[in-house]
Amino acid sequence: MIETDILIIGAGPTGLFAVFEAGLLKLKCHILDALPQAGGQLSELYPKKPIYDIPGFPEVLAGDLVNNLMEQIKQFEPGFTLGERAETIVKQEDGSFIVTSNEGTEFHAKVVAIAGGLGSFEPRKPLIDGIAFYENKGIKYFIKDPEEFRDKRVVIAGGGDSALDWSIFLTDVASEVTLIHRRNEFRGALDSVEKVQELKDSGKIRMITPAEVIGLNGAEHIESIVIEENGAQRTIPTDYFIPLFGLTPKLGPIGNWGLEIEKNAIKVNNSLDYQTNIPGIFAIGDVNTYPGKLKLILCGFHEATLMCQAAYQIINPGKRYVLKYTTVSGVDGFDGTRKEAPKAVVKAIV
Amino acid sequence: MIETDILIIGAGPTGLFAVFEAGLLKLKCHILDALPQAGGQLSELYPKKPIYDIPGFPEVLAGDLVNNLMEQIKQFEPGFTLGERAETIVKQEDGSFIVTSNEGTEFHAKVVAIAGGLGSFEPRKPLIDGIAFYENKGIKYFIKDPEEFRDKRVVIAGGGDSALDWSIFLTDVASEVTLIHRRNEFRGALDSVEKVQELKDSGKIRMITPAEVIGLNGAEHIESIVIEENGAQRTIPTDYFIPLFGLTPKLGPIGNWGLEIEKNAIKVNNSLDYQTNIPGIFAIGDVNTYPGKLKLILCGFHEATLMCQAAYQIINPGKRYVLKYTTVSGVDGFDGTRKEAPKAVVKAIV
Repeated sequence: MIETDILIIGAGPTGLFAVFEAGLLKLKCHILDALPQAGGQLSELYPKKPIYDIPGFPEVLAGDLVNNLMEQIKQFEPGFTLGERAETIVKQEDGSFIVTSNEGTEFHAKVVAIAGGLGSFEPRKPLIDGIAFYENKGIKYFIKDPEEFRDKRVVIAGGGDSALDWSIFLTDVASEVTLIHRRNEFRGALDSVEKVQELKDSGKIRMITPAEVIGLNGAEHIESIVIEENGAQRTIPTDYFIPLFGLTPKLGPIGNWGLEIEKNAIKVNNSLDYQTNIPGIFAIGDVNTYPGKLKLILCGFHEATLMCQAAYQIINPGKRYVLKYTTVSGVDGFDGTRKEAPKAVVKAIV
Repeated sequence: MIETDILIIGAGPTGLFAVFEAGLLKLKCHILDALPQAGGQLSELYPKKPIYDIPGFPEVLAGDLVNNLMEQIKQFEPGFTLGERAETIVKQEDGSFIVTSNEGTEFHAKVVAIAGGLGSFEPRKPLIDGIAFYENKGIKYFIKDPEEFRDKRVVIAGGGDSALDWSIFLTDVASEVTLIHRRNEFRGALDSVEKVQELKDSGKIRMITPAEVIGLNGAEHIESIVIEENGAQRTIPTDYFIPLFGLTPKLGPIGNWGLEIEKNAIKVNNSLDYQTNIPGIFAIGDVNTYPGKLKLILCGFHEATLMCQAAYQIINPGKRYVLKYTTVSGVDGFDGTRKEAPKAVVKAIV
């Protein structure tokens, strides 16, 4: 059982920044996210794309913003459970919550902050007979740890950035990389497309296009796939099949937690603290809705900040918190570090 | 008469960022501020101090944040009227407003956004007989254009960063710089104190401490000041006297505009758009108050953003605005520039 003050569901920018604001209030956070890495959409969907509307950044790459936020919060030592999805929640008699993930990990928290963005990202799965059987037996929709594929044969399917980028990356890890796409044309960053062309020419990536995977074989684990190419079928031996056909955000099991839902988002009280209809559960960032809501990262930062004040009151009932400015008071990390403005000196001029 | 869509009163970080969000909605902004430069407190009070709680910046100097914001908004070509204070407001029959500054400049705007921070910064004035007479006749509480002092004799009074920094700066401009302080000790950045010591030793700054200015002489303009030093009085000829005794924020004339005020701040509707009790007048950033208000820069950014949406509705009644993401749609500046993410290519691999 993981114990924490605030369980944050969602490791996107809003969830990450909540750790900082909680830390200023001496509250400890643990973050749970279905994706294998922190950053939410920014890391998964557009890490190399610029964002222009983060205040103070005329332009920032999404991936850099995530790195900056990770750097900003590291002094508050957040816990991370990645690659697992929040499944159930049970309110305890003392008002705290136990959340359980799809893999059975349990989290005990005084406050739950749902920062789930557009929902947990679920992979688009190809319609192939028996594919469910092979999940965790050679089918991978996400790559969590590339080392899993060390010296193995992998087949990747897809025509976008993920398929291109993982094909490139895995040539240095896997014993054999095959990329299958139903067209000859790929859609992605120019340098990724050119790199794959180069790896194909040098024989490091086997390309099969236009083609589709239509069958899977193997007793306990995938042993081969069946593809259709120019109307003919053939079998290709492989240890792993990785279909990368994009992600669809789904609110998922959180939709059944008894929270008021409107237009696939969680209704919150925006006139005070972004709390949901269940006291102690907050929703911040793109996952919430209220009159005038804008799904912008900068709004999530504000919502996270006000939420932390309310969480403080729940966790420290009756205790009064006086806002301190970081420029004036500095920042004390949970890791023993301290940041502070250089002090003014008082010095005679003689 | 200056015509604009949104008149923003206050050039602090909240006011500046409002220009960006308005620009995305194709609304034009003009900014009015009592200080001689943009940036509000950040530029005037602590430009060299770090801020730790701006999302995405583990640490940023206040002055750098202002520079970044100025860079971020420049494509939307905001107008600036600096060194003037908003004095009166008159609502027109068509719902627009005419605001007049203390120097008589008139602004005609469809929407007014007060981003006045803690208020307009008023200088602490020394209690010297007749000082009001010499304002604009040799007494300066702010330095707007240092060139005014080119080859003139100046006396600066004060013991803090402003007095130190302007004394240093003006040694290259004025014909003579005298620094008077009632103690021998100065309070400021170590390098400023050391630099003044050095300039004193090399004869470029005349220091008179501990001493106080107790009188002013001159028919049409200051010609000399009277100081008291060790119980004795003497007269020092000068062209300018610049007392830099700090600033006190005052809500000022805005307090008489008929806005609902609570604890020296303007009450707004935080459940929707940060509008005040007068339709068409908004208050954003530190100047406003609502349940759970936190006087943080990041909250001002959010408030500015939601305010702009409401301003859009007032300025374009009945027109529906669909939020566009800058990463997806890019940003079109009023100056003809365009920023956009590099496009994905669609390219065959053969």
